[in-house]
Order: sequence, then C-alpha cells, then structure tokens
Amino acid sequence: MNILRIDMEKLEYKYEELADELLLLGGRALTSKIVHDEVPGTCHPLGPNNKLVISNGVLTGSLASSAERSSMGAKSPLTGGIKESNAGGTAGLQMGRLGLRAIVFEGLRDDFQIVYINKDGVRFDSAEDLLGKPLSEAAELLYEKYGSNIGYYMIGVSGEMKMLTAAIANGDKDKNPTRFYGRGGLGAVAGVKGIKAVIFDDSGIARNKPKDAEKFKQAMRTYTEWLREAPATSKSFPELGTAALVRTTNKLGALPTRNFSTGSFEGHENISGEKLREIILERGGEGTPTHACMPGCAIRCSNIYADANGKMVTSPIEYENIGLLGSNLGIDDMDTVVELNRLCNEYAVDTIETGAAIGVAMEAGLLAFGDRQGAINLLEEVGKGSPLGRIIGGGAELVGKVYGIRKVPAVKGQSMPAYDPRAIKGLGVTYATSPQGADHTAGQTIRAQVNHLSPEGQVEASKKAQLTNMIYDVLGLCYFGASAVAGRFEVLADLASGYTGVEFTAEDMIDMAKETIRMEHAFNRAAGFSKAHDRLPEHFYLDENPASKTKFDVPDEELDLIGVEGY
Amino acid sequence: MNILRIDMEKLEYKYEELADELLLLGGRALTSKIVHDEVPGTCHPLGPNNKLVISNGVLTGSLASSAERSSMGAKSPLTGGIKESNAGGTAGLQMGRLGLRAIVFEGLRDDFQIVYINKDGVRFDSAEDLLGKPLSEAAELLYEKYGSNIGYYMIGVSGEMKMLTAAIANGDKDKNPTRFYGRGGLGAVAGVKGIKAVIFDDSGIARNKPKDAEKFKQAMRTYTEWLREAPATSKSFPELGTAALVRTTNKLGALPTRNFSTGSFEGHENISGEKLREIILERGGEGTPTHACMPGCAIRCSNIYADANGKMVTSPIEYENIGLLGSNLGIDDMDTVVELNRLCNEYAVDTIETGAAIGVAMEAGLLAFGDRQGAINLLEEVGKGSPLGRIIGGGAELVGKVYGIRKVPAVKGQSMPAYDPRAIKGLGVTYATSPQGADHTAGQTIRAQVNHLSPEGQVEASKKAQLTNMIYDVLGLCYFGASAVAGRFEVLADLASGYTGVEFTAEDMIDMAKETIRMEHAFNRAAGFSKAHDRLPEHFYLDENPASKTKFDVPDEELDLIGVEGY
Repeated sequence: MNILRIDMEKLEYKYEELADELLLLGGRALTSKIVHDEVPGTCHPLGPNNKLVISNGVLTGSLASSAERSSMGAKSPLTGGIKESNAGGTAGLQMGRLGLRAIVFEGLRDDFQIVYINKDGVRFDSAEDLLGKPLSEAAELLYEKYGSNIGYYMIGVSGEMKMLTAAIANGDKDKNPTRFYGRGGLGAVAGVKGIKAVIFDDSGIARNKPKDAEKFKQAMRTYTEWLREAPATSKSFPELGTAALVRTTNKLGALPTRNFSTGSFEGHENISGEKLREIILERGGEGTPTHACMPGCAIRCSNIYADANGKMVTSPIEYENIGLLGSNLGIDDMDTVVELNRLCNEYAVDTIETGAAIGVAMEAGLLAFGDRQGAINLLEEVGKGSPLGRIIGGGAELVGKVYGIRKVPAVKGQSMPAYDPRAIKGLGVTYATSPQGADHTAGQTIRAQVNHLSPEGQVEASKKAQLTNMIYDVLGLCYFGASAVAGRFEVLADLASGYTGVEFTAEDMIDMAKETIRMEHAFNRAAGFSKAHDRLPEHFYLDENPASKTKFDVPDEELDLIGVEGY
Repeated sequence: MNILRIDMEKLEYKYEELADELLLLGGRALTSKIVHDEVPGTCHPLGPNNKLVISNGVLTGSLASSAERSSMGAKSPLTGGIKESNAGGTAGLQMGRLGLRAIVFEGLRDDFQIVYINKDGVRFDSAEDLLGKPLSEAAELLYEKYGSNIGYYMIGVSGEMKMLTAAIANGDKDKNPTRFYGRGGLGAVAGVKGIKAVIFDDSGIARNKPKDAEKFKQAMRTYTEWLREAPATSKSFPELGTAALVRTTNKLGALPTRNFSTGSFEGHENISGEKLREIILERGGEGTPTHACMPGCAIRCSNIYADANGKMVTSPIEYENIGLLGSNLGIDDMDTVVELNRLCNEYAVDTIETGAAIGVAMEAGLLAFGDRQGAINLLEEVGKGSPLGRIIGGGAELVGKVYGIRKVPAVKGQSMPAYDPRAIKGLGVTYATSPQGADHTAGQTIRAQVNHLSPEGQVEASKKAQLTNMIYDVLGLCYFGASAVAGRFEVLADLASGYTGVEFTAEDMIDMAKETIRMEHAFNRAAGFSKAHDRLPEHFYLDENPASKTKFDVPDEELDLIGVEGY
C-alpha cells in the first residue's frame, strides 16, 4: 500500500510506502492524522499550506458489503477547523486496486487539471473542456475521454468558484456523479489547488485479495447475516431509504421546519419516505426505490427518482435533503425537493448547507417560506455565480452575516443536518462538541436508548456515538450497518484483520477512534477553537421548539467533558 | 452623574446613579466594563443579550482641548469579540450636560425609533421619515424636527440593513454628520435594537463646571501650551491633517497599495496631504484645510473638501481613508477618493473596512485596481443594499469568503487600517494582539523609537502604545495630542482630578488602562478567542512586501506575551 503525494503547483508526484504498522490506519484516522501532522493550525484553508487528503477506509476495496467508502480531509474553509467528509461510490475501489491507501494534494494553482492515475503513474491533463458544466455533463465527458471503466472524484462549478459549500463528487456504480463528500467546503480546497477531477484507471490490475482469506470470509458471513436480519438494514433502508425518518422525526418534533423554528411540519406526509416510494413506484421507468451506491452493498438505501415520463431526475433522495430542502424551507412538494436536490448535485454543493442557507435567506425575507419556484430560482443563482448565488453558496452562517440574521442553525460555521437539537438532544451534543462542527454522521444518537427530550445521558450517548461513527469512518464502512452490528465490533475487527493480515482487536479499534478524535481536537485548538465554540447558537437555548416543547439545556460543563478542551 | 438604561423592546428607561468611585471610569474603560460584566461572551452580537453602551470620556464636556470624545461598546458582530469605537463630535458634550456618563441600550425591536433625551427624561419617536435616506439628508431632518441646538448619534442605511461595516455617526460642530464610530459594525447592533438616532437636547441646562476649577485651569494651561509647542499638533496636523502621513508611510513602504500587495504607491503624490491642501486652497469656497471637529480643539486636524465650484463635498479627508480608498485600490485621484469617502459617510459605513473590502473585491477580479468609476459604482451598491452591495457591506473578510480569496488584510475579522504591518511591525503587533482586532488607534507605534522594519522591540512598543491609547480613550481625549504630551501623564490626571474632584494620579490611570485591557481579553476568551487569533493573516508571514523588503516576523511567543492568553 502506498501514499501518493501530488504537488499541484509543480505537477509532480511521488509514492511513499505505507508502513506496515499504518496498514490499519484508514479513512478518517488517516486523513486526520496527516492533516494534524502536516497542516499548521493557523494556516489559511485556501492557502499554500493546506493539504487535501483522500484516504480509503481500511476495508475499502475488499468488497465487503457497504465497505467502499473513502474519506477526504483538510483544514475546512467553512469551519476553520479540521474536516473529514466521507462518501460511498466507486472511486475508492479503483484507488485501492491501484495500491493507494491515500493521496495527499499540496500546492496551489490557477488553472484546472485532470489528475489521471493508472498503473504507470500520474498524468496531468487540462480540464478546460469540463469547466462551467453541470456535473452530469462533465461526468459524461470524462467517460468519453477516459473510457467507461474509470472511477473518479470531481468538483463542480461551486468548487471552481471556491464556494464554501463546494463538495466533491464520486461516481456511483451506475456512473452517475451522485455521491458527495459534501461537508465543510472541501470542493473549494480542491478548487484552489486546481484539481477539477481525479481519475483512477485500474486497467491491467488484479482484484485485491484478503491476506487471511478464511478469517475474512468468516467475518464477512457473520456481518452480512446481521445486515440481513436487522430490521433497519433488511427492511426500512431498502424499502424507504433514509427518508423513512421523516415520519419519525416529525413525531419527535425534530424535523427542521422553516429555518428550525419548529420541529413538526404540517406538510410532512407529502415529503415522507412512504410518499417517496409511492411516487417512484407509480412513475416506474428509470426510477427505483432501492438502489446500491456501491457494488455489493446489501443495505441499498439509495434510490433513483424519475419524472412523470419515467426519466431519471436525480439520485439519491435522502432524509437530510428532504429535511433541509423540504420542511426547513416550508416546502411540501416532493418534485420541488427533488429539483432542488438535482440542482445541488449538478453544482456539487452540499445539500445540507445549501438548504440551511436558503432557510436563512427565507428568514431574512428574500423569499417566503414555502415558495417553491423562488427556492429553485435562488439555487440557480448559485450555479451562475451571481452575487446572490455567491452569498447562498457561502453557506448558512455567511447568509446570516450578510443579512444580519441571528437565527442561523450552524455550529463552528457548519449548518446542522435535519434534526432539531432541542428534540434529539444527543445530536445537539454531537453538533456542539464534535471537532467536525454540526454533523449527524459524527455521532448519531437517534437510536440511543435515552429520552431524547431530556438533557440527561446525552453527553454519554453522544460520546459513544462519536466513537462508533469514527470506527465506521476509519474502516470505510457505511455506518448504516451500525444498528445491525449493535456494538459487536469484534466482527469488524476480524474483517480488518482478515483483509490486511494485521492483527487487530475491537479494543484496538476503539483506541484508534479515541486517538483520532483527540488529534482532531488538538488540531482545532491550534486553529483557535476553545470551549466557547462547543456551544449551540444562542437561540436554541432561548427559544422553545414549539413541537417538542423543549429548549436545548444540556449544561455547558457537561459539554466541556467531551469538547475541544476536555476530550 | 448617571447611567441611563434604555430597554428598546419595551421602550422603557431608568436612571442609575454613577457611584463616586466610578467617576473616573469613562470612555473605553466604562463601555468595556459594562460589556464585560453584563454581556455573555457566547451571545449572538445581534441577539437579545448583547448591549450597546455609549460612554463619555472622563473629560468629555469639560471643554478641554480635543476632549469631547465618547466611546461606544458592545460585542462586535464583525469580530465576535469585545468592541470599543470612539469619535469626536458634539453629542458627548450635550450628553454630559444632561448628567449622563453612559447609556446602556438593551433589547431588540423591528421598527426604528428616535430616542429623544432632554432634562425631563426620554421620549421615543418614530424614525419612519428618516429611513433609507443619505445621512446628510437625515441629519437635516433631525435639525428641522428637533431644532439646531441638539447633539445626536445616528446610524445610516447600512445600520438599518445590519451590515457588518455599519458605523454610527456623531454630528460635528458645523452640524454635519461626519464623525464616525466606525469600527466593528456597531451600527448593526444599533440597527437590531431599532435605534435610528439618539438626540440630546440640553436646553435649560447649565454648562458643566470643573469641581476643582483652579487645578483644572492650571492643568489645562499646561496641556494647551504643549499642544501649541509640539510640531505635530501645532504645525503638521493643522496644516495637512492626518494626510501628512501619506509621504511618510509611502517612504517607509507602509502605504497599503493594491490590497496590501506592496507598501509604496507610484501615484501617492496625487493623494498626499500636500496635494490635498493645495486642492482645497485652490478651490476655496466652503473648503478649508484645517477645521476642528469638536468645539475648542487646538489641533484642528480635520478639513472640509469642496468641489470645483467651492461647494462642500464631504469632511474630513483623513489619512486612513486616503490609504484604504486610494492607494489600496490603486486609485491616484483625489476627487475619486473624496467621492468614495463621501459615499461611505452618506451610508455610514466604516471607510477603513469598506476600502479593504473593495480591495479584496479587486483582488478577486470583480473590477481592476485603479478603476475609479468602477469603485464608485461598487460602493453605490452598498447604499442600494443589492446582493453585491451586501457583500461589500459585509467587510473585507466576508468578501474573501464569498470569492474564495485568501489575501485578506484583517485580524479577528476586522480589516487593517492604512499601515502595512510588515513595514511598521509595532502596528503589526497591535493588529495581532489588541482585543479590538486590527486597529491603529488601539496601539499606534508609528512614532515609537524603534526600527520599524526589525522584529525587535515591537512587542514592547505596542504594549506601551496600547496603554497610551487606552488612557486617551478613557479620558475622552483625542490621542493626536499624545505626541505633545509625550508620556507626561500627570497633567492628564490633573485634568481629570480637577474636573471630577476625585483624586487621580498618572499611576492610577495606567492601572485603569491595564485593567481595562485585561477585562477586554477576558471577554474575548469567554467569546472563544485564543492565541491562534493573535496572529496576522498567513500571507503577511509568507509574502515579502516588495517596498519594505520585509515579511512579518515577530515571533509568536513574543506576541503571546501581550495577547489574549498572556496579558
């Protein structure tokens, strides 16, 4: 296994062998370690001292179910802290076959390049032809030029324009650029480094094989069995996708509605997972209610949404997108949510951040809550890069600063995903204390055995969830399998040991997760974060969520136990 | 002496007597004490828990020369830290006659009020008629409605729109709204509290008299004599105003040019103090090269600039404005600088922040450096509140975020005034370590006996300057007298003792200054600042200033001795 270092200024590269003892360092553990070790905390995120790191999970390429995820890391231009964002798709698999655990991009450049990597090394091609195009069109051009077997990462017009909401896309198994490293503006970091796309071509390379085939096979069998048995992974996810959550959170009072002003939405049935399935099945054609984003995934939570003529519109429609682009905007129409989702994908902006940004714009009175066409028009400005589009493309906190709006649902500059932290307080703790800023995938507590409305036990629940999520992010496993695994991490450790041939226990994994969170906090301290940053925005403490009838009231002292100064 | 508390939500008020031992707490010492004691560090600057504090200096109202300044304080929406901004003008004098040392504004409201204060108390009038108007027009309406003897504070359209560059104006002795509490976006804090203007009407109130008339008179005589003797206060300031500095800083390589990319400007002679005086004298009419902003000021650094027909355009044209709106934009034409200055005044935006913001916009390629009409057009967008105008009105750092520009001359979110920190390194230390963000008036070292290009001795020089500036800000004295006083603070202490009747020594004054800086840092720590915030932007360390041939190289460890964690 190698680490590939690419100097984008000089267009030079070199391979460094991954030391054996680092074979079990993957995904978020590796991106965060490299960013922690090599990037100065006070550097400018768009400056020459920041680095963009791509790292496969330990299992990525193994073809274990839902184990093809990779991580991207850097100092975030959105939060100013350390950032890791991960996604599924197919690029990780190809990158793994090319013998690469990680790629570290350094330097700045003004033009845009396609970084083409195959068994012979790295080539730099001009990206001129791809610039300014919708992502789906750019992806087609890539396939035309490089053949249909490639895997790729790519930024959109948002990254070309260095917007703070800019994401990086990864193609799914159907060759659509629909899997996003969405959070933290990493697309802007790629943008200033002149990276339009990274192409992996594994032609002529054999499939990776587990080092201890028997151990791997055994663990794999158990893991897959669990996925097939658990209700979430065997029924809810495949049938309704993550959108199954709409009814759940609406009932809890946690569905963000009209810029997080309440947690239940009168129009939620029109944008529920059930409604989504109904529409998709009714329309038929290219649409499907269940779909795997990665080869071999048993969970298949993804979907493809088609229009009235059965033609694919976009993929996937997820709970977060429905929450942020639907109820958070007062929009109760699935086709509108899907169109907003499609536009976000075409511009490669983070759907969560963009939905939150439009919500703040609605709060500022730029358009009314519920204004379907207005929201679409506003989002189209992002694609154009007009001043208004640049404002929205700057994310929720920036919109708040531009329009003098204080009710901005963001922590450390990053907007909240689709759970009101007053109604699922463990997630509020995660938003507040995670080194990543507000992010459900950094410590999801919705399934924790706590009273979500009470402040009690939430710090413990979040701490546990932060570790669990980290373990998945390190292995490259999708954390949607977590409910099936239910903390029986030995099997995951066996998967990792079997695949790499290096002994690894559940305890080792937990230690690595803790150490990575510690390292991330250390980076953030160097970047200027203190416990004052481990708080929710003031209005979540002052204003009651009318749906849950609660304010956020987890005491600061408890937050500090697992925050930047306490971890 | 009283403190007046006004609840803008309920439109209620009450007077609190200023305890005798607090009689010597004025200006910045009092605003910072109240903000420190009463405003939670993590509150939202535009939220219900922030307060806007106006405090007179200890000597304000005494009619000592250049001693009519008052301070405004709050948690800054621009920096997120504590903010004090002070200015001359006439409102402080009237406020003092009404027996008020300070006013504390609390609460939020959506409409705009005129807060009218006279000997009978406080009245709230609708400000509807004043909204959306240029500041000069709004000021005329105030005089029409309330008579020509009033003093006032007022926000402009920028404050109505809650822009981060929004200032608060104070009328000068010629009834023009030209004295600005410019820095830190305090106009936005007034805006969310619904304060369009505060009127002081001292009809029927006798002039304040010194408690120890003899002591005051004696100290006054000495102080005025010094002002008449020192070269800066007797010749340079009255003749050329602060614009005398253009040639000085250009020679040092410290004149910000084209977004601080270098420190000497080939067109500097066209915007020098000498040229300014020449144009003003040549045009005659309402223009004058020397002018007092406060009654009785012996320094008279202000001026009035007239057009070719002798009609007043705006006042005053200061060095900072020439540096930021002239050389920093590559503009070498005095009439253009004056027009930009006039527009800033009419919208009541901070000239420094606005000049820096336009400089970053030029760096981003929105318009070319040197584009005179383009700069004027862009600034006009601010007045209109268009999306583009809102971006510029958000200040330099926000423009950088919107356009993905890393070379932003700002510290703690506040843009640098017109001194390149690589060429006057003591000011670089002040920018980095002052609790106020980048601000020359928080610790001006240009006259310090150091080699400005060397890193040595700069921390000591800045520390001393930070104390000196604080002493002036506490007394309500203009710090332009500092070169005449030359550290002989006993006379200033005598002025304060004579005026208030409370014994006060130079040592007391220095202690109070130290304590206030300590308190400001303490607030900032609570607000989330750490030593990582006590740094200049990365590019000042990486890129040489070609004019001075220096980078900024004062070691972090030295900065930390007087920063937020070390003070």
